[in-house]
Amino acid sequence: MKRAWWEAPAASPDEACRARAMTRQGELTKPPGSLGRLEEVATTLAALQGRDQPQAGLVAIHIFAADHGVVAEGVSAFPQAVTGQMLANFANGGAAISVLAKSLDARLRVFDLGLAVPIEELPGVKHLNIAAGTANFSRTAAMTNEQCELALHAGHDALEATAEEGADLYIAGEMGIGNTTSASALASALLGLAPNALVGPGTGLDASGVRHKLRVIEKALRLHASRTALPFDALACLGGLEIAALTGAYVRAAQRGVPVLVDGYICSVAALCAVRLNAGVRPWLLFGHSSAEPGHRHVLEAMKAKPLLDIGMRLGEASGAAAVVPLLRLACVLHNGMATFAEAAVSGRAGQ
Amino acid sequence: MKRAWWEAPAASPDEACRARAMTRQGELTKPPGSLGRLEEVATTLAALQGRDQPQAGLVAIHIFAADHGVVAEGVSAFPQAVTGQMLANFANGGAAISVLAKSLDARLRVFDLGLAVPIEELPGVKHLNIAAGTANFSRTAAMTNEQCELALHAGHDALEATAEEGADLYIAGEMGIGNTTSASALASALLGLAPNALVGPGTGLDASGVRHKLRVIEKALRLHASRTALPFDALACLGGLEIAALTGAYVRAAQRGVPVLVDGYICSVAALCAVRLNAGVRPWLLFGHSSAEPGHRHVLEAMKAKPLLDIGMRLGEASGAAAVVPLLRLACVLHNGMATFAEAAVSGRAGQ
Repeated sequence: MKRAWWEAPAASPDEACRARAMTRQGELTKPPGSLGRLEEVATTLAALQGRDQPQAGLVAIHIFAADHGVVAEGVSAFPQAVTGQMLANFANGGAAISVLAKSLDARLRVFDLGLAVPIEELPGVKHLNIAAGTANFSRTAAMTNEQCELALHAGHDALEATAEEGADLYIAGEMGIGNTTSASALASALLGLAPNALVGPGTGLDASGVRHKLRVIEKALRLHASRTALPFDALACLGGLEIAALTGAYVRAAQRGVPVLVDGYICSVAALCAVRLNAGVRPWLLFGHSSAEPGHRHVLEAMKAKPLLDIGMRLGEASGAAAVVPLLRLACVLHNGMATFAEAAVSGRAGQ
Repeated sequence: MKRAWWEAPAASPDEACRARAMTRQGELTKPPGSLGRLEEVATTLAALQGRDQPQAGLVAIHIFAADHGVVAEGVSAFPQAVTGQMLANFANGGAAISVLAKSLDARLRVFDLGLAVPIEELPGVKHLNIAAGTANFSRTAAMTNEQCELALHAGHDALEATAEEGADLYIAGEMGIGNTTSASALASALLGLAPNALVGPGTGLDASGVRHKLRVIEKALRLHASRTALPFDALACLGGLEIAALTGAYVRAAQRGVPVLVDGYICSVAALCAVRLNAGVRPWLLFGHSSAEPGHRHVLEAMKAKPLLDIGMRLGEASGAAAVVPLLRLACVLHNGMATFAEAAVSGRAGQ
């Protein structure tokens, strides 16, 4: 059988660059380690970018949107029409990520993987229409294998264009009413964790809504139990078109050597799926923020990921990652722009 | 007795503005609360600035530097000459805060309150030379009452100029070899906490260095025990010239109605001192980051402060607050720039 594209090796970080960057951090005019995780960000970006002067200036942000058949089970606080309405809001510049991308001077692209009711073409949105949303995974597989491959490849192609443009940093985000249900089911299968450890309120379910969502997921996990041992199959059975596109984009970023800043819960589940499909993906992933969605913690722990920011965000659409971009930029300017002890004629530690 | 200037009432936040801002947050195209603490930042800034469109564009950063006589007891990993050398590094643009201020397009001013060995005038540094550093507070009061008043007033005057320029946000920082020793002693007196809960490695003491620093502080607290019940007296006995200037600047900011973003450990101790001198200061203080210095937690808890960022920074010189400025700016652009549900024709929660 032909090897799938996502199994091709990921690029290797430049360890010589990392070592030089770590040496430089020790020479800058500050007590060693006193910039905390900004030092680690700078040395990691140096290694991933293969440059002595890491950069986070050119940032590409892709939003993948799709609908979820499982919404028929009543698992979301918002009606399904919101997915398409929010695509229009992205296009018109009124959504959080529109405002953030503009403020960060980042390049925002929006991909419509497939809505339950297709909408007319929107300016700045690429309509791929792989399917009219996923099927209801509490009754059947969310995607056929072919749909899942198409969605993975949509992420691959999106990333490919970005890599050609020489982005310093890649951010992906998602929009899809019902997608915390899909993400929680998929994370449960990938981690072998009971779903009650992962299920949360999403966009705002109350306690009885969360209990109902949990029962829907438990039923789906029983239905697909024989097919969810392999990550591709788990993704096809329980995932979403946008989650598969995220997964494909992350894998391709690692293969092309583009550093990734992962957003919140749903993106982290896609990142986990990418790492399970290809373990070489992991070094290319930086984690932006801790979502208020309770399952995020488990997904992060499984990847030994420690996000930089924890301010209770839970919006999705790449907003948490976008909020972290300025920190990465400051880490780079500090690394590249501070004087060394020798340059500034500042004394080092006593006795050294 | 004439009332001291720092006892004059602080300004009052505009609660009508806060209420309108909170209403608007509920109307923006996102699940309610999903921007987490960015929502709270925007509504707080609206109240403090008395504007419906909060801003964090014009940021003033003041660094207050001074030497500490207690360094004679061997409490710092770095030699005392570094205070003056770092002033030159600020002036030359090589320090962390120089790089950060430039990147943030913030206005950086540096104040030399008094070095152990005065240095020649540096461009961009205001040399106030109140004293040749403080006295060794393990043997005598760090400052005379007159020196302490002069240092408080230096902060007052620095803030006054900034208020006249219409700064959206005020940040103060510090530089002074030995000043975590002074800050820990002062916090211990103000909080009535044993100093072992507060003392940490500062710029990089090892365990035996920290134990020695603790003994020096314990001795000083015994020496000054009869005089540290009032915050002004505690500041004069145990503080530093730069800590008093920070305190004065924070009090004046509250009186002039300028929002403050507090930096790390030493600045938070000065903020605590300011709140003890004048309780009306507290609403004007936002807290940027959690320092890696262990005492910071206690000082923050005493003011019910929850910083936005916790990434292990412990450099001082306003660097932690500066790193948080972009988050405040993003909170403002989101608040001011996102579409409402009505504007974007996006459906609200199901059943609403």
